[in-house]
Amino acid sequence: MRFRPKRDALPFAGLASFMRLPYTQDPAYLDQADTAIVGIPLDSGTFYRAGARFGPRAIRLHSLYQLGPYHPILSLDVFEHLNVIDYGDLGVDLQDTQKAYRMIQEGLAPLIEQEITPICLGGDHSISYPVLGALASAVSPLALVHFDSHPDTLDAIRGNRYNHGTPFRRAAEAGWIDPEHSIQIGIRGAGRVPDPKGDPGPLPFEVISGEALWTLPPDQVVDRIRRRVGNHPVYLSFDLDVMDAAVAPGTGSPEIGGPLSRDILPILRGLAGLPIKGFDIVELLPEADPQNTTALLAANLVFEFLALLAHRKQKVSQE
Amino acid sequence: MRFRPKRDALPFAGLASFMRLPYTQDPAYLDQADTAIVGIPLDSGTFYRAGARFGPRAIRLHSLYQLGPYHPILSLDVFEHLNVIDYGDLGVDLQDTQKAYRMIQEGLAPLIEQEITPICLGGDHSISYPVLGALASAVSPLALVHFDSHPDTLDAIRGNRYNHGTPFRRAAEAGWIDPEHSIQIGIRGAGRVPDPKGDPGPLPFEVISGEALWTLPPDQVVDRIRRRVGNHPVYLSFDLDVMDAAVAPGTGSPEIGGPLSRDILPILRGLAGLPIKGFDIVELLPEADPQNTTALLAANLVFEFLALLAHRKQKVSQE
Amino acid sequence: MRFRPKRDALPFAGLASFMRLPYTQDPAYLDQADTAIVGIPLDSGTFYRAGARFGPRAIRLHSLYQLGPYHPILSLDVFEHLNVIDYGDLGVDLQDTQKAYRMIQEGLAPLIEQEITPICLGGDHSISYPVLGALASAVSPLALVHFDSHPDTLDAIRGNRYNHGTPFRRAAEAGWIDPEHSIQIGIRGAGRVPDPKGDPGPLPFEVISGEALWTLPPDQVVDRIRRRVGNHPVYLSFDLDVMDAAVAPGTGSPEIGGPLSRDILPILRGLAGLPIKGFDIVELLPEADPQNTTALLAANLVFEFLALLAHRKQKVSQE
Amino acid sequence: MRFRPKRDALPFAGLASFMRLPYTQDPAYLDQADTAIVGIPLDSGTFYRAGARFGPRAIRLHSLYQLGPYHPILSLDVFEHLNVIDYGDLGVDLQDTQKAYRMIQEGLAPLIEQEITPICLGGDHSISYPVLGALASAVSPLALVHFDSHPDTLDAIRGNRYNHGTPFRRAAEAGWIDPEHSIQIGIRGAGRVPDPKGDPGPLPFEVISGEALWTLPPDQVVDRIRRRVGNHPVYLSFDLDVMDAAVAPGTGSPEIGGPLSRDILPILRGLAGLPIKGFDIVELLPEADPQNTTALLAANLVFEFLALLAHRKQKVSQE
Amino acid sequence: MRFRPKRDALPFAGLASFMRLPYTQDPAYLDQADTAIVGIPLDSGTFYRAGARFGPRAIRLHSLYQLGPYHPILSLDVFEHLNVIDYGDLGVDLQDTQKAYRMIQEGLAPLIEQEITPICLGGDHSISYPVLGALASAVSPLALVHFDSHPDTLDAIRGNRYNHGTPFRRAAEAGWIDPEHSIQIGIRGAGRVPDPKGDPGPLPFEVISGEALWTLPPDQVVDRIRRRVGNHPVYLSFDLDVMDAAVAPGTGSPEIGGPLSRDILPILRGLAGLPIKGFDIVELLPEADPQNTTALLAANLVFEFLALLAHRKQKVSQE
Amino acid sequence: MRFRPKRDALPFAGLASFMRLPYTQDPAYLDQADTAIVGIPLDSGTFYRAGARFGPRAIRLHSLYQLGPYHPILSLDVFEHLNVIDYGDLGVDLQDTQKAYRMIQEGLAPLIEQEITPICLGGDHSISYPVLGALASAVSPLALVHFDSHPDTLDAIRGNRYNHGTPFRRAAEAGWIDPEHSIQIGIRGAGRVPDPKGDPGPLPFEVISGEALWTLPPDQVVDRIRRRVGNHPVYLSFDLDVMDAAVAPGTGSPEIGGPLSRDILPILRGLAGLPIKGFDIVELLPEADPQNTTALLAANLVFEFLALLAHRKQKVSQE
Repeated sequence: MRFRPKRDALPFAGLASFMRLPYTQDPAYLDQADTAIVGIPLDSGTFYRAGARFGPRAIRLHSLYQLGPYHPILSLDVFEHLNVIDYGDLGVDLQDTQKAYRMIQEGLAPLIEQEITPICLGGDHSISYPVLGALASAVSPLALVHFDSHPDTLDAIRGNRYNHGTPFRRAAEAGWIDPEHSIQIGIRGAGRVPDPKGDPGPLPFEVISGEALWTLPPDQVVDRIRRRVGNHPVYLSFDLDVMDAAVAPGTGSPEIGGPLSRDILPILRGLAGLPIKGFDIVELLPEADPQNTTALLAANLVFEFLALLAHRKQKVSQE
Repeated sequence: MRFRPKRDALPFAGLASFMRLPYTQDPAYLDQADTAIVGIPLDSGTFYRAGARFGPRAIRLHSLYQLGPYHPILSLDVFEHLNVIDYGDLGVDLQDTQKAYRMIQEGLAPLIEQEITPICLGGDHSISYPVLGALASAVSPLALVHFDSHPDTLDAIRGNRYNHGTPFRRAAEAGWIDPEHSIQIGIRGAGRVPDPKGDPGPLPFEVISGEALWTLPPDQVVDRIRRRVGNHPVYLSFDLDVMDAAVAPGTGSPEIGGPLSRDILPILRGLAGLPIKGFDIVELLPEADPQNTTALLAANLVFEFLALLAHRKQKVSQE
Repeated sequence: MRFRPKRDALPFAGLASFMRLPYTQDPAYLDQADTAIVGIPLDSGTFYRAGARFGPRAIRLHSLYQLGPYHPILSLDVFEHLNVIDYGDLGVDLQDTQKAYRMIQEGLAPLIEQEITPICLGGDHSISYPVLGALASAVSPLALVHFDSHPDTLDAIRGNRYNHGTPFRRAAEAGWIDPEHSIQIGIRGAGRVPDPKGDPGPLPFEVISGEALWTLPPDQVVDRIRRRVGNHPVYLSFDLDVMDAAVAPGTGSPEIGGPLSRDILPILRGLAGLPIKGFDIVELLPEADPQNTTALLAANLVFEFLALLAHRKQKVSQE
Repeated sequence: MRFRPKRDALPFAGLASFMRLPYTQDPAYLDQADTAIVGIPLDSGTFYRAGARFGPRAIRLHSLYQLGPYHPILSLDVFEHLNVIDYGDLGVDLQDTQKAYRMIQEGLAPLIEQEITPICLGGDHSISYPVLGALASAVSPLALVHFDSHPDTLDAIRGNRYNHGTPFRRAAEAGWIDPEHSIQIGIRGAGRVPDPKGDPGPLPFEVISGEALWTLPPDQVVDRIRRRVGNHPVYLSFDLDVMDAAVAPGTGSPEIGGPLSRDILPILRGLAGLPIKGFDIVELLPEADPQNTTALLAANLVFEFLALLAHRKQKVSQE
Repeated sequence: MRFRPKRDALPFAGLASFMRLPYTQDPAYLDQADTAIVGIPLDSGTFYRAGARFGPRAIRLHSLYQLGPYHPILSLDVFEHLNVIDYGDLGVDLQDTQKAYRMIQEGLAPLIEQEITPICLGGDHSISYPVLGALASAVSPLALVHFDSHPDTLDAIRGNRYNHGTPFRRAAEAGWIDPEHSIQIGIRGAGRVPDPKGDPGPLPFEVISGEALWTLPPDQVVDRIRRRVGNHPVYLSFDLDVMDAAVAPGTGSPEIGGPLSRDILPILRGLAGLPIKGFDIVELLPEADPQNTTALLAANLVFEFLALLAHRKQKVSQE
Repeated sequence: MRFRPKRDALPFAGLASFMRLPYTQDPAYLDQADTAIVGIPLDSGTFYRAGARFGPRAIRLHSLYQLGPYHPILSLDVFEHLNVIDYGDLGVDLQDTQKAYRMIQEGLAPLIEQEITPICLGGDHSISYPVLGALASAVSPLALVHFDSHPDTLDAIRGNRYNHGTPFRRAAEAGWIDPEHSIQIGIRGAGRVPDPKGDPGPLPFEVISGEALWTLPPDQVVDRIRRRVGNHPVYLSFDLDVMDAAVAPGTGSPEIGGPLSRDILPILRGLAGLPIKGFDIVELLPEADPQNTTALLAANLVFEFLALLAHRKQKVSQE
């Protein structure tokens, strides 16, 4: 059985599951699914402008018109190789962070158990921590490939240790990611500099700064990523604020001086073949996105993630 | 079996069926349903600003947070008395009007056959014509209770006879509505005056003009409606442009000088008990509604429609 | 020859003269015109938010779809009785106020000379002063009927004597209006209280405050206006901020607690028969009007002004 | 010493303290202050759309242009009688509710100790609970005068007992308000009906429903409020969603069928003379307010609150 | 006689013909015109978001401030060499596609007959088909130079053969364009892949994909275009969605990964000298363009088209 | 004493001085300040869309969240080396240009006298003229480094000689800038071509056109700037419309075909070490910037200016 997007539906009508794929948590579907789109509408980890709780809905709405099913560059029909479901949104408690994390880990458990690769739609970047925790039950540590304008490895913000500035320090402390095989792409702004007062300093990630992206061609970025992660299983975390603020204004912490979509697409496509065990795309703030360009980009990137998985599945099945 | 709205869901998460009622065309549900929310995203009958095709989606999104299940004025839990489903959106052909009308009539047929009262979410006002046609297979003619700032009884606009300015002339010609027991509320603007060149003139509807609403108390409006329709089966058509433009800007033909929501609610509630066989609420244009007040109003009015049906069902079952 | 609005044009197409009336300064048209729509895009008299220079364009755009030609309450086809042209926009100098005033007076002179009633689209309220100056060459003083939430009779703002807070003091000083037969409707907010430091105090206008409008029925407002102006020639100045801020947000100085369109329409219509020699409608700020309700209201009010003129012309010709 | 708003500043320039009053926590000012504007930007108690954390900033920005210093209806220069400071915004912890409450209570303590009446700018409605807690150290219980479309007396929402739906149950349990002398105005929607599953039912407040406001004249509303509170010290809590959604869209839970500003102003002014010990105005969501009408209304209402205090101070000093 | 843009007009005032060129269909002007701006506000060929009917108006409005008359790169005053008129908007029937096509062909006929080069402002991309049909009466087949992210050579969408996804298949079938000398620039997304079910496959156009544009310098793109079209007469069709979605969000089908304006300008300018017989610029959706960047771009591109024509005319007259 | 930004404040709370630096004109602070942020909210020099008067406020608001204090590329903590104050906004007279210029020059005088480098936030580009006049009392002529899409060296616009198109002609005539050591970067559009009718022609600035920036690497732009200015004292004027319109739509005269932020940042950083005596950043129009990307960019660029000053101060102190 193949799950196919419903291509003949009127794009302005009906309910908006991702690409009109089956929206289900039915075990009969889980049995056959390879990957699942999972919304995690938690934004209590944000210190400035909230609203990423509406991110999953916006990504789904913008998936209805122009995406797939073919990926012309990887040259495949994604859904011929990959059974994809939309698992819906996990419940979250916006008032109790630790409880929200438990809900997320428990919500993902049935997928992890069945080796279904989760593609998580944030919410803010704090969700990466419990998602990595859920994945750790199956594979750990993971090599992190992290697109962002901020390192998100602070120890704490105003004393608070669990928020959208700290997920990867917490995950590294827990042993869920391996900094020695991890890499950050696009870091810029003042946030990269450690705070002298008590900050334990950056983690030993490799970093390709935002400024480096101005001149480094995508294929060299790809080379550095592939060399860094080697043949380790990978987690790919994509914070939309890695993009130039003018291109993706709909995030909570936009930064100038970043890449365009045409700089990012060849990097992502260059990762084809990597054993990616999980994805997130985070910090979409629909209220800050009146032209919907950030949501459109996010929906496209999720399709790129699907294509990466389909490509690997195709290759593995051909071997 | 009772179909209940899912009240405990996070309002920003998950798919948006109307009030999170069952979204289904499953015969097992149809067997038990009393009424069905039906989206009809057709806006090809519009001559100025299109976009009512996005109306059903907007109404569903704004139904998620604050509605029901209790109706404090009619003093009932709507879903204790009424089994409601969200039937989804009918397919429509935006390029071929007559085909679109056939699709609408055929789409509604399974509901009409099972005596399920349709509550139709437009789309533009042209949908009333095929909806009345579908209802006519069960009951005809109907008394029309028509809230609008325009009579929509033109013979043609620039030679075109099937559009959002003509549905009730066409329906009257077809014998689907009975002008002698029909009434229009809120008519204003210049559109009410017949065009001397070839216009066949107004239909013999009773009219309560927009200006009359400035001073006529709601209970007297209710009296006139009830007297006019008598004990005939009723179709209620609600064009959002009946409202004052400042209150409901998100329509294609807003008119100043109209009523507020607090003027309309007591009129609608005053219709409790009438044998209403079908509803539509039309001309919601989400792109013209940046503050979402029109969509919020529309979602509330749909809940009021449900309460009218629940109230009548309760009364009938008590008799 | 009758000038008629082009009713069969596509409302989204073509150039937007007011109601698609002849857009011309051609003497052949002036010879036959009774009234002229004149844009005066001057907003240098504003101290807070500028942008009323875009007002005339917005009013024209919103005149294209739903207006006239019939006025159902005054029961006439406006253009059967009145030859209306759109005279275009007067040149103004935004950097030199006195020069701008001269440009306005000279721009209006050909109309005044031919006894064509000007309907002036602001621009901010400072334009009333030069418009009254232009009219004074034909008839002076005029009885002012002034709808506004502010009296606009300050002597100066921060030392500046020619701005949108002072036009009627200047006009009274010049003898162009007669305070004893003038009346202000809707005044509210703190602005009505004279500044003890050097302010010469209010002019002897009659005032119907904004608060009074909460309970005074429109017909009594009409009575007071008619009694005040008697049979004097009238100038009607309509500042859109007289409306409740929630109803007409697109102005530079919105005030809460004002009337709705349905409160204002019967007052205006009640002025039918008065010898009105000129109109302005001012302070439309399209950038503050994302729902376009203020522009729509303004376009409708201009049509009401036309109907008042047509009605008087009809009556006079019947006598 | 009198603290005066700086009236001669350019309204688009400079920092925006409320009405450009002294922005200070300096004891020298506190010694002389009668009342203080206090921002409480906490919105973690919201379950749908966040963003009320930006409310205080928006209210301050909209206080700069048209407010005061004179109150024409109470006939006084507010700042001749009342020394007002802008105390700035209290620190809040968005991730830890109980800590946030402590911060609020501690932040208000210096004001309460000096008998400075706080006017609190939310934030969401959950702030009323800690504000009442802070006031309780000086006077308790208070008679609550509560404008809202929702009773906010739930016991819990999805198990959570401290949020914007529960403040007044918590406050009543703590003995900080006295339901027997408290009154709610504007309650409507389904929220007023108790949830049969475990809900302890409504508190013994007097309620003037939203529907009752459609016909009850403001002076009778005032009578009922005054009779209910008697001569008890009062806390006035104003949730902007009491207003009609079309008039005040910029809140998190807008409801149709509510009052306009002209219905609310005479009620508030009718409270002149009551011994009000504290105020809040909550649930302003600037991102949902593109026309800024809700922020403008909120700023005006704060000025009305100041006028009430000034009026009472004037009266007391005259006695 | 030279037709010149009116450069001294206030850009916010008056009617907005393109660059304030003569807005006329007067034969006296046609006799002298070299090229004509023609609005074709048809958007019934769109399947998702309508609104391109407002495109011509938006392009005209954004032509008023900064354009021309000099083209610094081609080093000429466009209007010294080229007589340009704004021919207004053609009538279209939004409900009857075939009739709309006839109206367009008939509307353009007077221009074609007089060898006036049309520059057509869409409307959606379906207009290219009738425009090519109109041109075919004078010259056929044409070499197509087609900027777009989609090939628009589908056979049908949901059975419908005349819409914005099919114009160039229909035109090729009619023999109006010659695929062997035609080229498409910017194609990307999944749409380029033929649908296996019955799709006749792509036409033999040369294609420079969107991905190719990431690295191919503009002069090489120009070389490939010039080689492909040789010395054949050319039709240039510019779909604004060829641009990166972040740069031109105001279209109905935006795609990520596209070029910026600085990538497109040197390509267009590189076409100087080609015998271009007609242009269109399509799919501008003003409602999706709140920052107006897409409309501004479109107005600039029309000026570039004019410069290309002026340059060729200058060159020819110099020979 | 070091003035530090308050980094621990809630970014949505409190008053918004630039980066929460001391907001003061207190001589005690002036004594120790190295540089001052100065708002100059004058926009009467604009001929199209006004609103730059709100520019300083928007820049301050967007400085609160992500900026500094570290500059990772220049490798310094800006505020360790530089004492920065926010001097507030200068008073300006929007109705009297010459008076406004005097107010600006007098407002800046205390800073110039104390050798405090002003960083001026416009307002429109006309402010550069009086700012240069103020600086001339200390150092003159200055080498101008001017980022803009327009040369702003017109002699007059419609006879008006003091506006946002003329500041550098006036400044050159006054001898305040030295064209022989001045350079303009980004000039494009038709405005660069002199008007044959009476225009005195361009000044002898070096020009790097907008088109040249398409291919010239930033380091070569830097070389040309440094060569041009040599060791002369420099004034840096940054008109936000130098940016591509799609990247910085919030200006009054956006132009397509311009640079992105990642093209501009390396140029600015390449100027490290130059003796810059004053800065302005102008033409931010917040109302045209719904995604806030232009304001965010502007706030970032001001931080870059601070870093340039800090870097030079550090270097000088190290020598």
